[in-house]
Amino acid sequence: MASESGKLWGGRFVGAVDPIMEKFNASITYDRQLWEVDIQGSKAYSRGLEKAGLLTTAEMDQILHGLDKVAEEWAQGTFKLNPNDEDIHTANERRLKELIGETAGKLHTGRSRNDQVVTDLRLWMRQTCSTLSNLLWELIRTMVDRAEAECDVLFPGYTHLQRAQPIRWSHWILSHAVALTRDSERLLEVRKRIDVLPLGSGAIAGNPLGVDRELLRAELSFRAITLNSMDATSERDFVAEFLFWASLCMTHLSRMAEDLILYGTKEFSFVQLSDAYSTGSSLMPQKKNPDSLELIRSKAGRVFGREDKEAVFEVSDTMSAVLQVATGVISTLQIHRENMGQALSPDMLATDLAYYLVRKGMPFRQAHEASGKAVFMAETKGVALNQLSLQELQTISPLFLSDVNRVWDYRHSVEQYGALGGTARSSIDWQICQVRALLRAQQA
Amino acid sequence: MASESGKLWGGRFVGAVDPIMEKFNASITYDRQLWEVDIQGSKAYSRGLEKAGLLTTAEMDQILHGLDKVAEEWAQGTFKLNPNDEDIHTANERRLKELIGETAGKLHTGRSRNDQVVTDLRLWMRQTCSTLSNLLWELIRTMVDRAEAECDVLFPGYTHLQRAQPIRWSHWILSHAVALTRDSERLLEVRKRIDVLPLGSGAIAGNPLGVDRELLRAELSFRAITLNSMDATSERDFVAEFLFWASLCMTHLSRMAEDLILYGTKEFSFVQLSDAYSTGSSLMPQKKNPDSLELIRSKAGRVFGREDKEAVFEVSDTMSAVLQVATGVISTLQIHRENMGQALSPDMLATDLAYYLVRKGMPFRQAHEASGKAVFMAETKGVALNQLSLQELQTISPLFLSDVNRVWDYRHSVEQYGALGGTARSSIDWQICQVRALLRAQQA
Amino acid sequence: MASESGKLWGGRFVGAVDPIMEKFNASITYDRQLWEVDIQGSKAYSRGLEKAGLLTTAEMDQILHGLDKVAEEWAQGTFKLNPNDEDIHTANERRLKELIGETAGKLHTGRSRNDQVVTDLRLWMRQTCSTLSNLLWELIRTMVDRAEAECDVLFPGYTHLQRAQPIRWSHWILSHAVALTRDSERLLEVRKRIDVLPLGSGAIAGNPLGVDRELLRAELSFRAITLNSMDATSERDFVAEFLFWASLCMTHLSRMAEDLILYGTKEFSFVQLSDAYSTGSSLMPQKKNPDSLELIRSKAGRVFGREDKEAVFEVSDTMSAVLQVATGVISTLQIHRENMGQALSPDMLATDLAYYLVRKGMPFRQAHEASGKAVFMAETKGVALNQLSLQELQTISPLFLSDVNRVWDYRHSVEQYGALGGTARSSIDWQICQVRALLRAQQA
Amino acid sequence: MASESGKLWGGRFVGAVDPIMEKFNASITYDRQLWEVDIQGSKAYSRGLEKAGLLTTAEMDQILHGLDKVAEEWAQGTFKLNPNDEDIHTANERRLKELIGETAGKLHTGRSRNDQVVTDLRLWMRQTCSTLSNLLWELIRTMVDRAEAECDVLFPGYTHLQRAQPIRWSHWILSHAVALTRDSERLLEVRKRIDVLPLGSGAIAGNPLGVDRELLRAELSFRAITLNSMDATSERDFVAEFLFWASLCMTHLSRMAEDLILYGTKEFSFVQLSDAYSTGSSLMPQKKNPDSLELIRSKAGRVFGREDKEAVFEVSDTMSAVLQVATGVISTLQIHRENMGQALSPDMLATDLAYYLVRKGMPFRQAHEASGKAVFMAETKGVALNQLSLQELQTISPLFLSDVNRVWDYRHSVEQYGALGGTARSSIDWQICQVRALLRAQQA
Repeated sequence: MASESGKLWGGRFVGAVDPIMEKFNASITYDRQLWEVDIQGSKAYSRGLEKAGLLTTAEMDQILHGLDKVAEEWAQGTFKLNPNDEDIHTANERRLKELIGETAGKLHTGRSRNDQVVTDLRLWMRQTCSTLSNLLWELIRTMVDRAEAECDVLFPGYTHLQRAQPIRWSHWILSHAVALTRDSERLLEVRKRIDVLPLGSGAIAGNPLGVDRELLRAELSFRAITLNSMDATSERDFVAEFLFWASLCMTHLSRMAEDLILYGTKEFSFVQLSDAYSTGSSLMPQKKNPDSLELIRSKAGRVFGREDKEAVFEVSDTMSAVLQVATGVISTLQIHRENMGQALSPDMLATDLAYYLVRKGMPFRQAHEASGKAVFMAETKGVALNQLSLQELQTISPLFLSDVNRVWDYRHSVEQYGALGGTARSSIDWQICQVRALLRAQQA
Repeated sequence: MASESGKLWGGRFVGAVDPIMEKFNASITYDRQLWEVDIQGSKAYSRGLEKAGLLTTAEMDQILHGLDKVAEEWAQGTFKLNPNDEDIHTANERRLKELIGETAGKLHTGRSRNDQVVTDLRLWMRQTCSTLSNLLWELIRTMVDRAEAECDVLFPGYTHLQRAQPIRWSHWILSHAVALTRDSERLLEVRKRIDVLPLGSGAIAGNPLGVDRELLRAELSFRAITLNSMDATSERDFVAEFLFWASLCMTHLSRMAEDLILYGTKEFSFVQLSDAYSTGSSLMPQKKNPDSLELIRSKAGRVFGREDKEAVFEVSDTMSAVLQVATGVISTLQIHRENMGQALSPDMLATDLAYYLVRKGMPFRQAHEASGKAVFMAETKGVALNQLSLQELQTISPLFLSDVNRVWDYRHSVEQYGALGGTARSSIDWQICQVRALLRAQQA
Repeated sequence: MASESGKLWGGRFVGAVDPIMEKFNASITYDRQLWEVDIQGSKAYSRGLEKAGLLTTAEMDQILHGLDKVAEEWAQGTFKLNPNDEDIHTANERRLKELIGETAGKLHTGRSRNDQVVTDLRLWMRQTCSTLSNLLWELIRTMVDRAEAECDVLFPGYTHLQRAQPIRWSHWILSHAVALTRDSERLLEVRKRIDVLPLGSGAIAGNPLGVDRELLRAELSFRAITLNSMDATSERDFVAEFLFWASLCMTHLSRMAEDLILYGTKEFSFVQLSDAYSTGSSLMPQKKNPDSLELIRSKAGRVFGREDKEAVFEVSDTMSAVLQVATGVISTLQIHRENMGQALSPDMLATDLAYYLVRKGMPFRQAHEASGKAVFMAETKGVALNQLSLQELQTISPLFLSDVNRVWDYRHSVEQYGALGGTARSSIDWQICQVRALLRAQQA
Repeated sequence: MASESGKLWGGRFVGAVDPIMEKFNASITYDRQLWEVDIQGSKAYSRGLEKAGLLTTAEMDQILHGLDKVAEEWAQGTFKLNPNDEDIHTANERRLKELIGETAGKLHTGRSRNDQVVTDLRLWMRQTCSTLSNLLWELIRTMVDRAEAECDVLFPGYTHLQRAQPIRWSHWILSHAVALTRDSERLLEVRKRIDVLPLGSGAIAGNPLGVDRELLRAELSFRAITLNSMDATSERDFVAEFLFWASLCMTHLSRMAEDLILYGTKEFSFVQLSDAYSTGSSLMPQKKNPDSLELIRSKAGRVFGREDKEAVFEVSDTMSAVLQVATGVISTLQIHRENMGQALSPDMLATDLAYYLVRKGMPFRQAHEASGKAVFMAETKGVALNQLSLQELQTISPLFLSDVNRVWDYRHSVEQYGALGGTARSSIDWQICQVRALLRAQQA
């Protein structure tokens, strides 16, 4: 008799099951990390059953006590999985029955497996979101602190990997920190939608036994209860949202890592990664590879695509490691101020040269063309842009006067960008203030 | 001389450009729909330049007037694209210059192409989000109205495509409507993050000419300004978020369409699609295909994957059409109440049979097994579950008494599921109330 | 001193490594299944080193013997992983050194880690492809056998889930079997490109020590050697190809599973899944869910997206289980011939009705319209299409004569489709022959 | 009456169609490029109908003549689309009817829309594959020619963006060319599977009118006919395969573009892009952006994800443009030999230093550690690796003798890598030979 196998659906099956099916169907290898929330959910549900009169107080106490024992076994590493345990939920209930006997069979009254699984998953993900929020805030804080401390360092801002304009090193740091504040905002929104209780939805039609879902909600500290039992047990929007969040966040970390890999090449030599975040080559003795950064970059491709429970576990682990490594990298990174300064070159001030003419009244499109001609003239003569003589410049436009020399000061150039969001000192200070205010608001 | 070609970067290039490059690089074929927001953005920017002293009031008026003329040409369909117009931004500026002369060249002062593109895109997407919100609310409203009107119709609830439990037709409608309320909530969040102004960020370092970004924000009615100029011009999180929103929303519509396709088959015959949403076959004269539903389903796969401007336009169109078709389908769908009722069968009450025993004190796991034995007994004897005699039931458990007959009433079964979120009448009424309250809150 | 930790890059590092980095970087949890091919590769390489004079024959014998011992430990489950073993390659070499001492240090001469990893991966995947080919052929064979045995069963062919035309049950089976023959053809092509040896490519510049790559190729029975050392160590096209193959194959299995799920519903009742491939519900005692089919369908989404080694292992396992389950499902599936026959209805012969008129000389477009009018007339009158009287049909077209009655025979209808590839008996026989011939050719 | 609208399914529909549905369903905006293959397919099919006795020879001639006229209108740009033309197939048939009258209605006899669509798509894609093969071969040929011409140029090979070992510039070119030869091999395989004729499959059951599919195959020069009519009309494996091919090919082109973008930065200065493949900045006059390379890189993300007809058209265009741009870029790229030579540094010979010790009998693992110590010593002393004195080296190992000086010659270093696939001159020559042989074989 199939019922003797102890399978949950007991009485009906008479055919044997193809053994490969069991393995195919089992999720216990990855969902065991749900043990704690599964116990929490079951404890709350047994309180709900007692209030509805489906358990006596004594039965409830027996179940609560038994569940505590199961939890203890997990915590102490003494819980023994059984080959027939398909998933963590079956395993815990099987063990409960061994510990307290037939009363254990009352715990699942009116509760479906889906009901239980999705409740457990929401409990687990709610906790994970909190942990990841903290790690993300820690990273942003590290970045902002560093931006504040190294605000006087200038280096080239790049677009299309071409040197574009001089900017502050802090401006670069903040450009990535600001992106991360959007991620932490989004993570709070995802957590808000996770924080809704499905328990009490049964299989599809709902719960027919008078269980008070508001009591369950209060027991498990959820923000609200789900509205429709069919939707509640089948929807996994919050999983897709979490994975999408991770995907965007990893994209940001990946872009930062890409920049740092480049800035750390021999050719750029702007930054040096701490040994703690580098590895060597098994063949080439001189190599010191930025493996931490490459791993951050390569993980980016892995966080999206699947929408299942297993993906959630894997992605959570990845995000947790990546955020810690990123924080470590940023806090130990060494910068080479001299190389940064030497990488600034006069042609990066070509836009400022155009603005010089604009300030003398020339329309920008003409000024852009005039400055472009100066760049071309300097290239043709094989000199730097600031080495063109006034006479030479005047062949391009008579508006050039001796005060054009002031254009060639990098620090002066940077200070012009005082509009909010720019790279001037005042704007950097404003950005630091704003990001810190955001952090405080998100942590509230 | 390359500068004669009127290319923006004018003075410097001397080599000719491979013609395939021009086509490769051009976006004008799809971004022309940005014409209106591009004019809006430029008008606001010229006001910013005037306040900063970079345009005289007369020059500003000339530009504003010229831009209005360009807008008029677009609105009347008389704007003529030029083969050298790479994108809508170049086209508008080229035309402005033709209309008002050299002053047009001052409009781009301190503004980068990225600055302008991302501002235009945000303006356009902000409007699109509002439009889509309205269409989505219209669909939800239609569904809730229908759920209210047809609350007395029962039919089988399915899991794994197997008949599971009797539910109300309204319960099915609401399960999909509730999912859509999450989509409309998310769309508002995406819109909130789109509603931030990047203009005044320049290429990378910021704006050096004293442009007041708060004035620009107020002119264009944005909620806030971006914090960092590098991040502002390069980030496209809001595009990814919008596409992800569309992807999840389409998943929901697709699932609803899948159910309806199935319910409309000859074999199920629960619903009938209006002719307005069906098409025929070019070969088989009797066929009436649910093309509207199949298209909804097939579009689901198309809304994610790319993160570019072109995708945004295409996805917006798709979502707009899909939401309207879905509203049309739901409002014209005919249901076959008789077939729905006939599809209910006694084995769907096996769970209720178990609950009968639970109410007499049997632990649920045993009751589940006992009910399973009854199902097996009925199958073996070739009779319906409710045709087992009391004697036969009592061979399974002595707890079965003559009052077991009450179990076989479908309407009574449905009414048991009174816990919030279930399929009982009271819960359906509550769900309708809740969804309507959500709609009101989101529309506020 | 870092060198004391035994890390491969030994002498240089002085900073400590962030512990989270080690875990982040380690692949040993999933790549241990490469143990056997890693030993094979190392044995071949030590033969190459000996021939190049970099190992004496005695040293080679010592290494070969040591590697055999390592293999024995793995085979017997006595190999003990060490917390510092990052991956299977490090682990094996570490153990070799413990067993045979310093000579072990010569094995990696001129070989890079990438060189070794990619060789091992190709060896492993070559074997996996062979295994999967066999499983796939077994499935196709089962399907073809069944198609042959049940060729006389007719049932409705569906398009858009609407009943379209009567077809043979075998025609449906073969439509899926034919799709799978393309998968097995593609798998052979992927295997062909996997079967190319990279060993001897070093890190990037190649191997400078006179190792004979042709000897390595022959030792490891590869079809060819890679052409360029940079490409050889970095390219993973074959991984992407394998994952794409799995993705397409899963799509086919998924579609077949979808059809079978539908055909197994109460509403269709064409087939019944063996208990060996079904499971029950923890809540609803009457439920028997087609879990095997649903798992096949749900796995489809999981096989694409990532292009890494870990994905290869996971996807291989999935494919292997899925192919076996699919074979089991098909070989044990019970069909309900009566229900299949009863599902045929006269309106499915509307196309034949049009062809009747075509054969009397009416252009098809007009015949299609005439037959459509007949369908509409029957629907309006509430009778079956074959119950329209000759008089009624003649109001649509005078070409209808008393011989129209022959149209209403389903078996006659099916036999018309005799063009190769159609559902007539002769064509089914031809298809069976063709698929069997393909199998023989692929297995050659 | 719906039949008056001329819709194909004519006689039956009485409800009006929601106008948004028409737009939703229409594909004419993108499938008009199928006009030519649609005519070809219809011409072949009318020959099949004539042979089967369903058209008289006169009717066939009338249809063939009419189709030629339709083709002429398309070729001359005079074909006028009608608002009711849903797709190219409807449009052509509508026009045929206008030109030749009722006989046109016979053309679709026994042919389903799917039958026709999939035949047209295969015809079109077969041609596209040939075109793309030619463009791909042209690119590979350009690369091989360049590799041959510039074989004497050395520069750093990078791994992890760190300078690794000196290699030949040709070795880098060939590493990418070899990857592309796999793409061209795969494209031929895809084409082989496209080159199978589905025509004559009808809607689902096959063709019942005696059409000879072998005649159709010969008319349209296909390699084979499809085996099963259900599979033939529904499968789109070849579309997925084509898109996957494009995805992999774009990945290769994208990686090459990434390298070139990097090599073209101010910091690397190894190569210079022709002006024909660069663009400027609208704001910064000195900028010259590698837009061609960035576009190649950015297109990579766009070619996968969707599996529809529209994607095929878009991806074909993208691939065609990208291959031509890539060929242009490679053929006009200027290299800076001096900068390349100056980027070689002694620490890139650390592996050779280890091999020096290996050749004196030290196991590689020890030699790697010894060389690592030398690198560390040089870094600590602030000198180049080749500036360590013999005494200093001897403190690390007594095996160092005065002949260690020979290690520091880059050209000598490169020449060591003589194993097939390495960067030595002889191996480069072999690679060039092999790739050319592959090209010849593929073009055969």
